[in-house]
Amino acid sequence: MINVCLFGAGRIGAIHAANVASHPNAQLRYVVDVFADSANKLAAQYGAEVVSVEHALADPEVQAVIIASSTDTHARLIEQSATAGKAIFCEKPIDLDLERTRQCLATIERTGVTCLVGFNRRYDPQFNELKAQLDAGAIGAVEMVTITSRDPSPPPAQYVQSSGGLFRDMMIHDLDMACWLLGEAPVEVFATASCLIDPAIGAAGDVDTALVTLKTASGKLCQISNSRRAAYGYDQRIEVLGAKGMLQANNQLESTLVTTTNQGSTSAKPEYFFLQRYADAYRRELAHFIAVLDGKETLLTTAVDGLNALTLADAAVASVQSGRAVAV
Amino acid sequence: MINVCLFGAGRIGAIHAANVASHPNAQLRYVVDVFADSANKLAAQYGAEVVSVEHALADPEVQAVIIASSTDTHARLIEQSATAGKAIFCEKPIDLDLERTRQCLATIERTGVTCLVGFNRRYDPQFNELKAQLDAGAIGAVEMVTITSRDPSPPPAQYVQSSGGLFRDMMIHDLDMACWLLGEAPVEVFATASCLIDPAIGAAGDVDTALVTLKTASGKLCQISNSRRAAYGYDQRIEVLGAKGMLQANNQLESTLVTTTNQGSTSAKPEYFFLQRYADAYRRELAHFIAVLDGKETLLTTAVDGLNALTLADAAVASVQSGRAVAV
Amino acid sequence: MINVCLFGAGRIGAIHAANVASHPNAQLRYVVDVFADSANKLAAQYGAEVVSVEHALADPEVQAVIIASSTDTHARLIEQSATAGKAIFCEKPIDLDLERTRQCLATIERTGVTCLVGFNRRYDPQFNELKAQLDAGAIGAVEMVTITSRDPSPPPAQYVQSSGGLFRDMMIHDLDMACWLLGEAPVEVFATASCLIDPAIGAAGDVDTALVTLKTASGKLCQISNSRRAAYGYDQRIEVLGAKGMLQANNQLESTLVTTTNQGSTSAKPEYFFLQRYADAYRRELAHFIAVLDGKETLLTTAVDGLNALTLADAAVASVQSGRAVAV
Amino acid sequence: MINVCLFGAGRIGAIHAANVASHPNAQLRYVVDVFADSANKLAAQYGAEVVSVEHALADPEVQAVIIASSTDTHARLIEQSATAGKAIFCEKPIDLDLERTRQCLATIERTGVTCLVGFNRRYDPQFNELKAQLDAGAIGAVEMVTITSRDPSPPPAQYVQSSGGLFRDMMIHDLDMACWLLGEAPVEVFATASCLIDPAIGAAGDVDTALVTLKTASGKLCQISNSRRAAYGYDQRIEVLGAKGMLQANNQLESTLVTTTNQGSTSAKPEYFFLQRYADAYRRELAHFIAVLDGKETLLTTAVDGLNALTLADAAVASVQSGRAVAV
Repeated sequence: MINVCLFGAGRIGAIHAANVASHPNAQLRYVVDVFADSANKLAAQYGAEVVSVEHALADPEVQAVIIASSTDTHARLIEQSATAGKAIFCEKPIDLDLERTRQCLATIERTGVTCLVGFNRRYDPQFNELKAQLDAGAIGAVEMVTITSRDPSPPPAQYVQSSGGLFRDMMIHDLDMACWLLGEAPVEVFATASCLIDPAIGAAGDVDTALVTLKTASGKLCQISNSRRAAYGYDQRIEVLGAKGMLQANNQLESTLVTTTNQGSTSAKPEYFFLQRYADAYRRELAHFIAVLDGKETLLTTAVDGLNALTLADAAVASVQSGRAVAV
Repeated sequence: MINVCLFGAGRIGAIHAANVASHPNAQLRYVVDVFADSANKLAAQYGAEVVSVEHALADPEVQAVIIASSTDTHARLIEQSATAGKAIFCEKPIDLDLERTRQCLATIERTGVTCLVGFNRRYDPQFNELKAQLDAGAIGAVEMVTITSRDPSPPPAQYVQSSGGLFRDMMIHDLDMACWLLGEAPVEVFATASCLIDPAIGAAGDVDTALVTLKTASGKLCQISNSRRAAYGYDQRIEVLGAKGMLQANNQLESTLVTTTNQGSTSAKPEYFFLQRYADAYRRELAHFIAVLDGKETLLTTAVDGLNALTLADAAVASVQSGRAVAV
Repeated sequence: MINVCLFGAGRIGAIHAANVASHPNAQLRYVVDVFADSANKLAAQYGAEVVSVEHALADPEVQAVIIASSTDTHARLIEQSATAGKAIFCEKPIDLDLERTRQCLATIERTGVTCLVGFNRRYDPQFNELKAQLDAGAIGAVEMVTITSRDPSPPPAQYVQSSGGLFRDMMIHDLDMACWLLGEAPVEVFATASCLIDPAIGAAGDVDTALVTLKTASGKLCQISNSRRAAYGYDQRIEVLGAKGMLQANNQLESTLVTTTNQGSTSAKPEYFFLQRYADAYRRELAHFIAVLDGKETLLTTAVDGLNALTLADAAVASVQSGRAVAV
Repeated sequence: MINVCLFGAGRIGAIHAANVASHPNAQLRYVVDVFADSANKLAAQYGAEVVSVEHALADPEVQAVIIASSTDTHARLIEQSATAGKAIFCEKPIDLDLERTRQCLATIERTGVTCLVGFNRRYDPQFNELKAQLDAGAIGAVEMVTITSRDPSPPPAQYVQSSGGLFRDMMIHDLDMACWLLGEAPVEVFATASCLIDPAIGAAGDVDTALVTLKTASGKLCQISNSRRAAYGYDQRIEVLGAKGMLQANNQLESTLVTTTNQGSTSAKPEYFFLQRYADAYRRELAHFIAVLDGKETLLTTAVDGLNALTLADAAVASVQSGRAVAV
């Protein structure tokens, strides 16, 4: 039984808490959050205790921590947890700054702790099946990857300011998926972006609509489209063109119902947002983390993956500014 | 070059005229219709001549006739044409009366003329592909056939009176398809029906909604559903369950467009009615007729098929009246 | 907190045990099963105790029982539980015999206990959404209901013998759905059936392939197709034709992945069997039962529904034997 | 009745000849081709005469010409035909050279003749319906256009050499569609490309796989993906994201058949290539040309559209070479 301390009792923290609680080999021991109300509520729900960071990390019975607190706290908590010898499950990103991220990697390497970075989509059953088919040769060699990733509605402009911007906050997931599916590191990034949805996002220095093109050393191509608004829900699709065919992971719909009238045939919208769409992915991600700690599986999303995706996101930002493809 | 005389210049006649005109080995020589206006218009369009039945059948250069006139004229025209030695393409049904139908078959047999009965759906590319897959063993032995056949809107009640009723006029197509797909003659027919759409149809002694169940000697089953109204257009689907899987021929839609909003994803309706849905089938049916006359193909829908389908339709009518399964 | 006693620790019992355990207002107190191993295992997993029927029913802290034991024990357990004043959740059927079923209803009525009959499909989110759309008038008045219900593979012939046969064991679910969706009781049943899949099923006196036609007093029609084998998985579809359109609840697929090659586009199979397909339905059914006991919802699937569905199943059996439509 | 002279009796010429022949207001008068056999065959089929360019243009009864000859003859034939006062239907491109294209535009403007440039996709019923929905406000303001355009198999490398390369030969269609759908001229083009399919194409100095990103002055974005090989057929899809939803024009499939086995559900491939996929578009394009000459419609695809698309294609080539977004 692995005892877990959760840092951050917000929306994502609550998901992880539930998944820990329902996992047969894990239990939630501590919850840490600067907002006492959130921490108390979550702790009460799962029979955990609300404590300080120091208290939690000092407890030798805690083997693992989940870092789901605000982005600016990730790096410090990683370092503290690693130094305390705890296995780490850290929501992406490690940090918004590349240098700071590298420091964390150094600490992780030095202490030898397990550190899973929360690229939850790699654990999604749909995308796993796509990857399995790809690896099994169902469509031959990969030539082109197309990732469509659109949120149902834009975040408040103040969120945007602390988020690192669309490329580091939202597209970073897609950049990680691109690396995973291309099977080869991108060497060139081109990005272009606009503010078409909410002028307040533009005023905050960010964009809400973006296209990125990646190219690998062997010439494989990838296009990613992001939008902060899809009126129809959370649009999460992946398409891979290979020498022998195409694989597509389509959206999960809210139901299988089809209504046909003289206006046509209407089927359901995609599931609304990531909490619904990736519920299974979060569950499997936690299960993978526990399985890694139990020595049964090998870590799939490492801190190095976190570094690589951030590097690409930074390159995308640089490309928008320069109007050039940026080498990475 | 095969010279064709067309009996009947109505809606179906016009389709056949166009298909004859565009066929490289056929040309429209005569049009015969009691409505002079219709006949003249069609004849003018395709460079044909308007004549009497007798004139047309007396012309030795006419090798073939197409009978697309009203149902009550079919039997007599078949007999006259057969006696004159003309190859016959007759719209279904041969006649609404079984005995009269048998007389026609005797004449056809005696004269030895080719007589194609217009079960156009057997020439539809979609259903042909389904049949080809079935024959190729794609789903193993047939166990159950499901035919959904719904018109977009009910005909006027006065049409119903002269049509022979839903079973002989509309379902006869589906009964022929059932025989074709089951690969074995039905030996038992059960039918139930209602008048749910237009009370005038009920007042005229007919039904507008019906279900039929067929069973073959070896126990294969078939269900047919008919409705005179599908608000969304012409609903023409076939599903076959076999030992190894299922084949489905779905509706052809008006376009491939999908519109997705916060109300869901809407795709196009089925094509509106038989003129659109079976345009290819009519073209291929005529081409098959010409190919048979040219000795290149073997007749696919014979007068015997017409007799068989009418026998099943009559059994369905008897079943509705008796509340029993009727043996055939 | 409602304390539950589970009768039957088999496949279905295990589902209910898990759903009780994860429900915030219910807990599993006792497990009763003649197979001690199954009972012990399930009890251990959820912290329950293995006891006798008498012990469980004598405990005043037990408010509710779930009857998931073999069919031949249902009626007696219902009577014992009702007499003990326990609320009852009973898997269908109440009994395979109509008279015995009526006796149970009398006991339930006399004792006034809540008795939910486990027609799980009425709790399925897809079918619920279909029913909600129907009730909201999305397609106008119902005219025709089409239910396709096929198991992935046939049960062993010895199961068939104790099951009551295809109509009472398998189609009973569809007959209940038909009543629910037609919104009006069927007054006429016609059935035809074959043994096409496994001769051993025929030897055991049952069929494996069946079609049923229902008609209500106002003339609404319903067709149900059952097969004990669908090579592609569990085929559970419902289609309703109304005056203004059509509603279809399609199969839930194993994934959203589509693979397109020169052989065409291949999407996933339907989910394999009822444990997967109706996992949500079972969860919601249990939640409904608890909500009824908490006075928050009104019982949706009653013992009367169980009686009605069995009556229709018996009529179907009689129809197969007589070759007639049977009035109910 | 408009008399038409056809320049070029190859694959595309044959399509136009058939469409002219079946058009009620047009007839094929002359066929001109350096390959006498092709010219004779086509002329014979439609009752036309094989003549020289000079003879055809000197005939005052010829009102219109269709230029479907090899690309390097387009500019000269446009100038000769315009000078002779003939209406022109010219397959894209006008010329591979921008300056030469501008000279043609000057001649067209000076002579005032009608000149339709053959961007056939704008006449496709599917894309027309998409555009109509867009213009009707079905999804609000356009934000992002995604065009997927893949050939079933690569052309011979020698074709590539005379074609002007992927951007000017293949993507030029998609660039025109982008302008049409964005409703606003792109001001920035970024392109990246690889040779992944046939090394001979790379050796001939061309690419076979390419991604292009366009941006308009108001910040609307467009991504185009081209591949010379889609193992599954001709992949022609368009997706538009707007403020209120998404429009998608999906592939037309070879049939509506779906085969479901224990391997999943397989539907048909997309129609094989442009002759099938765009048969309707070619027919409607010719009908539009005739309608313009009859004064009933306004020219939809002009020589200016041809110039604009070539300008974008040249910018894409320049972008590949420079690694920069190119302003247009």
